[in-house]
Amino acid sequence: MGDQGTRAVPTGTEGIADSLLDAVERCGAPVCVGLDPVEDRLPGSGKPVERMRAFSFGVLDAVAEHVPCVKIQSACYERHGVAGCGVMDETIGAARDRGLVVILDGKRGDIGLSATHYAAAAFTGDHPADWLTINPYPGEDGVLPFLAGGNGAFAIVRTSNPGGDEVQSALLADGGTVSHAVARMVARIGDAFLGASGFSALGAVVGATCRSDAAELREIMPRQVFLVPGWGAQGGGADGILPCFLPGGTGAVVTASRSVIYPDGTGSWQENIQEAARQFADHVGTLTGHR
Amino acid sequence: MGDQGTRAVPTGTEGIADSLLDAVERCGAPVCVGLDPVEDRLPGSGKPVERMRAFSFGVLDAVAEHVPCVKIQSACYERHGVAGCGVMDETIGAARDRGLVVILDGKRGDIGLSATHYAAAAFTGDHPADWLTINPYPGEDGVLPFLAGGNGAFAIVRTSNPGGDEVQSALLADGGTVSHAVARMVARIGDAFLGASGFSALGAVVGATCRSDAAELREIMPRQVFLVPGWGAQGGGADGILPCFLPGGTGAVVTASRSVIYPDGTGSWQENIQEAARQFADHVGTLTGHR
Repeated sequence: MGDQGTRAVPTGTEGIADSLLDAVERCGAPVCVGLDPVEDRLPGSGKPVERMRAFSFGVLDAVAEHVPCVKIQSACYERHGVAGCGVMDETIGAARDRGLVVILDGKRGDIGLSATHYAAAAFTGDHPADWLTINPYPGEDGVLPFLAGGNGAFAIVRTSNPGGDEVQSALLADGGTVSHAVARMVARIGDAFLGASGFSALGAVVGATCRSDAAELREIMPRQVFLVPGWGAQGGGADGILPCFLPGGTGAVVTASRSVIYPDGTGSWQENIQEAARQFADHVGTLTGHR
Repeated sequence: MGDQGTRAVPTGTEGIADSLLDAVERCGAPVCVGLDPVEDRLPGSGKPVERMRAFSFGVLDAVAEHVPCVKIQSACYERHGVAGCGVMDETIGAARDRGLVVILDGKRGDIGLSATHYAAAAFTGDHPADWLTINPYPGEDGVLPFLAGGNGAFAIVRTSNPGGDEVQSALLADGGTVSHAVARMVARIGDAFLGASGFSALGAVVGATCRSDAAELREIMPRQVFLVPGWGAQGGGADGILPCFLPGGTGAVVTASRSVIYPDGTGSWQENIQEAARQFADHVGTLTGHR
């Protein structure tokens, strides 16, 4: 990790998954810390956007030596308007400067030209992200534009919220569930964007609290990197995450937000976050055989 | 419409659909103009964001007396970074100042707190939108936060792109398609947010090029206002839009972007847009019995 100030990820078309998994290996932990700055939990005083900026940078400094990547929750920044979007942009740049792979959690989902514009918003400009979360419900023409520039996309396949079952677990006439149909589409599209590691630039978001689903989705999507939210505060644990990995503990990245960035502890807020990130990486790294 | 500078929509929890349909009736046309400013089609010279701002305001001035509402494509503004987001914010305000109902086409889709943040981003601040397009794939907990503040949401139920069938038309074990399952969820959730007109603050996006689907979706969702994209440039016409309406020509709003904002014509660009908006409103208004 370190602070070399260089791009963590090469610019080859299919190298983006290789780079993410390389970063995981170097760190010895398939984990990601989510930055979800919420006004009433920010330390310090002053204007919310200023506190959000200081907090975001403080989190990055605290976690950079313990984890390979961060996930930046666009909603938290957007809610503070144009100034918030500016802080998000700066935060993406600061994360990249610290050698972290950056997943922008924007869950964008549109087709054709609009998808191309969202891709440009995420992946160009002064501070581009490496990956963007996307919603694949619109279909292939809502997915391909996000992969055109050599960047990566994590398609929302299975969410871990209580209401997620209503659509995602509906049974299909030819077997399986709606999330399986989405997974099959993701696997098919992603096969055109494989890196040297065999993993695709098109990954999948699969919630950690859907244990039985995870094993089936892993079977349908052997070449997708799984981004696995739900660890910690959302109730996901070892049971939920292990089926998301391939044998050997590869192919998935577990992400935690609140449990790492708002931890209990007796030190300063940054010391507490650093310790929470260290423990999170150690726990998941050990569980998955990386340590 | 006029330029009264007041909020087009009252602040009651369920009044948002009533207000939209009232605006349609006053105008005599269930139509919406989409603002999708794309750099290489902007008139004038200078910095892209400045031209985008001038174009956006120019379109609003040209269409305000002919249509009841506008749809602002977030992606087009976001791709110009923080400055673009600023122009979008100004454009929303300018549209409201001109008495137009504003649909922000952001297709946001997340759950819990993140959805709450996206709702705050769209519906609070100096220049709030009236409606936001959302992606309902995450389920009920990804929809309710957008309805909590008395605003409206159009859930993406059926898209009109070629790839839209792969997931949306997959057949379910208990009959119907995936888009029908989404529609049933939208209808159920929306029933708690009905206005005096009988229409819900939770509407549905249904593409104009899915004629057979539209009739079935209309049956499943009798209380949803349909936002119907695909008119004009995307190939949708009278055949596609009529099944989206209820008897009497109510309950839907047809939206056109490129065919109105980049029209052919012999006048100035603003005169051409004004004439295209007038013809669009007249055509759809007549087709649906409003004129």
